[in-house]
Formats: sequence, C-alpha cells, structure tokens
Amino acid sequence: MDVLVPFAADRPKTRLSDTFTPAERRAFADAMLRDVLRAVREADGEPTVLADRPIDLADRVGADLAATAAVRVDDRELTPAVSAAITDAFPGTVADPADAIAVVMGDLAIATPRSLERLFDATGDVVLAPGRGGGTNALVVRDPAFRVDYHGASVRDHRRAARSIDASLTEIDSYRLGTDVDERDDLAEVLLHGTGTARRWLSDAGFELRTADGRVTVERTAVE
Amino acid sequence: MDVLVPFAADRPKTRLSDTFTPAERRAFADAMLRDVLRAVREADGEPTVLADRPIDLADRVGADLAATAAVRVDDRELTPAVSAAITDAFPGTVADPADAIAVVMGDLAIATPRSLERLFDATGDVVLAPGRGGGTNALVVRDPAFRVDYHGASVRDHRRAARSIDASLTEIDSYRLGTDVDERDDLAEVLLHGTGTARRWLSDAGFELRTADGRVTVERTAVE
Repeated sequence: MDVLVPFAADRPKTRLSDTFTPAERRAFADAMLRDVLRAVREADGEPTVLADRPIDLADRVGADLAATAAVRVDDRELTPAVSAAITDAFPGTVADPADAIAVVMGDLAIATPRSLERLFDATGDVVLAPGRGGGTNALVVRDPAFRVDYHGASVRDHRRAARSIDASLTEIDSYRLGTDVDERDDLAEVLLHGTGTARRWLSDAGFELRTADGRVTVERTAVE
Repeated sequence: MDVLVPFAADRPKTRLSDTFTPAERRAFADAMLRDVLRAVREADGEPTVLADRPIDLADRVGADLAATAAVRVDDRELTPAVSAAITDAFPGTVADPADAIAVVMGDLAIATPRSLERLFDATGDVVLAPGRGGGTNALVVRDPAFRVDYHGASVRDHRRAARSIDASLTEIDSYRLGTDVDERDDLAEVLLHGTGTARRWLSDAGFELRTADGRVTVERTAVE
C-alpha cells in the first residue's frame, strides 16, 4: 500500500505553542513522524512524506528510516496538496483494484502496525479512520473520483463525498488511529499509549501524567 | 456475557452543568443509557444496570428495554461498587472460563453492537478498552483475583493490576468504546458518530456541530 504521510514542517504543532518552545515543537513533531513512519513500514506500507516545504528526512527521522520513505513537497494547504497526490496515484480515470493510496497523518503518535494493518486491509472504495473532533486521521482511497476536504468536520464531509460518487464506505473503529496529537491534553495519550520515540521524548523532557478528577492531563517537571 | 453497566443516577453528568439544565442532564444521561443497553443486548450481552440509588428503569429507558435488564443498587463510589459486583460474579476463588463479567460504562453513547462484540469476544483474563484521558471505559474480567480501581489513570493501574496477578491482558483498540461523554466537546462525538437516542435527543434540543479551526465543537440554537 502506498501511504501518504502529511507533515507540517513549516510551522509544526502550533497549538502546542504554550507547552513547547519552537525548537521543542519541531523535535516532538519529528519524533511523532518517526513513530508513524516506522509503524507504516512495519504494516508493509510504503510511505511518502508529504511536506509543506523541503526537508532533510534523514535529519528528521534518522537515516535508516529515511531510506525507506520518499518525500513529496507541496506548499499548498492540506486539502489541495493531498488531492494532488491522490490524483497522481491513479493513472487511469477508471478504478483499478491495484491502485490504492492511504493517507495517514504524521501526528498519529500512538498508531501501531496492527492499527494500520486494519486500515490497509479493510475493504471499501473509501475507508475512513475518524479522529477526535470530526477529523479524518487516516483514510484509504480506491476510487479516483473521491475528493478529500480536510476543512471542518471532515469525517462527515468525507462520508458525504463517498456517497455522492456511490463509493462503498468503511469506517475503522480505532482509538489509536483516532488520536492525533494537537493539544496539550493529547500528550497524556502519548504517555499512556505510546510505544516509541515520541513517548520517550516526552518523558525525557520531564512530562508526566497528572491525575485529578476527570481525565488525566500532563505536567512538566524540571529535568537535569 | 454478563454485563455490568454503571450509571450515575444521583448526580448525572455534573461536568455538563454549564451546558444542560439538571432536568436535561438527567434526560440526556437516560438517553445514553438506553443506547448502551440496546447495544449490549444486540451484542448478546445480559445487562445489569449498576445504579447509585434505586431507579425505575422502565421510566428511564422504556419498558421494553428495561424488561431485558436487571438493576443492582450500590450507593458507594464506583470502585467499591464495581468490585463487589465482580466478586459476586465469581462464585469460586479459582478462575472458571464460564465465569466472566464485563463492565461497560453507561455513557458510551457511540458504542455499537460491533464494538461490544469485539470486547466480549477478545481473549484474555483481563480485557481493557481504554477511554480518553486514561479512563477504562469498558473491560472484561475472567480472573476473580483482578481488582478494579477507577481513580486516576485507571487504564494504567488496570494494566499493572493484571500484571501483578499474572493475568493475561488484552487491549481493545476502539474509538467507539474509547469515547465517553463527560464534557461539552464530547457532544460533538455523539452528533458525529451516534446512531441512537442520545444523538436524536441532542438534535431535538438544538445542538449542532460548530466547525472552526481545529476540532469541531457544538453550539446550541433555539428550538421551537
């Protein structure tokens, strides 16, 4: 499966500006990208990082992992950039079962190979993995007529888009794929469920779970 | 599968106090309970509502559904109340494969029969369905030595508890089971992914999705 991994290299993780310094935001975004790429590879996916500006992937995720991934640069917004990549994935205008492309966001820090296998293996012209707050954290497209739109409640819009072209639609019920990391409270999910670089990065940076009434959040303690 | 469904009848959904009137909180909690009970039944579970005070279940969820569920009243906190019910589910002190009990929270408003089947069918002495913010939204216990503790980051504590008694542990990767409804933003999940009474109740009460930058939330408009 060809897997597009959108990655905001230009201004990573702006909603974590209150939590991280700019350098930390970049380092943490790189750690998440590394975890996603590794999970994609272990699920037998062939990743292409879709970056919004030129990046040195080896510098971001290490030479070994970078050697297994391609980079595509498109400085437009997410929707036209992904749309163009999907169009390029379908040489013909008629659906060919051999043509399929997955889109897996680069901030799915608790995605595992198993959760991605469920996505890749699901049948359907369009397969959606909903994300918190109406997002579409991952999808598979097997119908060249399908168009993405990441603005607003994209999972709702993608359901409608699939219906409008009579494409068969499957939804993947995955907590791991449903969890993207945008806000401070999301860091608790990484500490609770992460298995890779991003979790270690957070721990090394002094982040710990803070339990209180209701949901768990994070706090940061000084590290030497 | 025997399924315990904890339900806070005394002070339902206090973290939605800014969004709903007390009467609405009760009505919405009842609607969610109805959806959960129906999903449990359709997944071949045999539900017992664990209420913190006596309730008229038929008044809450309708006579038809109430006829298929038992009620157990325990006015203690969630942890001792669930613990006592689990203890009662295991007549012997040695694990018998026939003895198993599931605990499915009454506010899993987007749980489906399919997501619950995955929970019930999973192998393991202990099966956990993590919830947002470290919660344990659903679990299955097949080892009488296992003890629940819902305080704090319960999913982490439940992992440790399973390890401490050498129980085999399985985690269910489900967005639907991972989504409990405690806070205002959670209502967006019900509007996006709900299929039953709770979703209709929200729509009838005037709640709609509000899309903006980032995750979708809800807004309320006047209804006639």
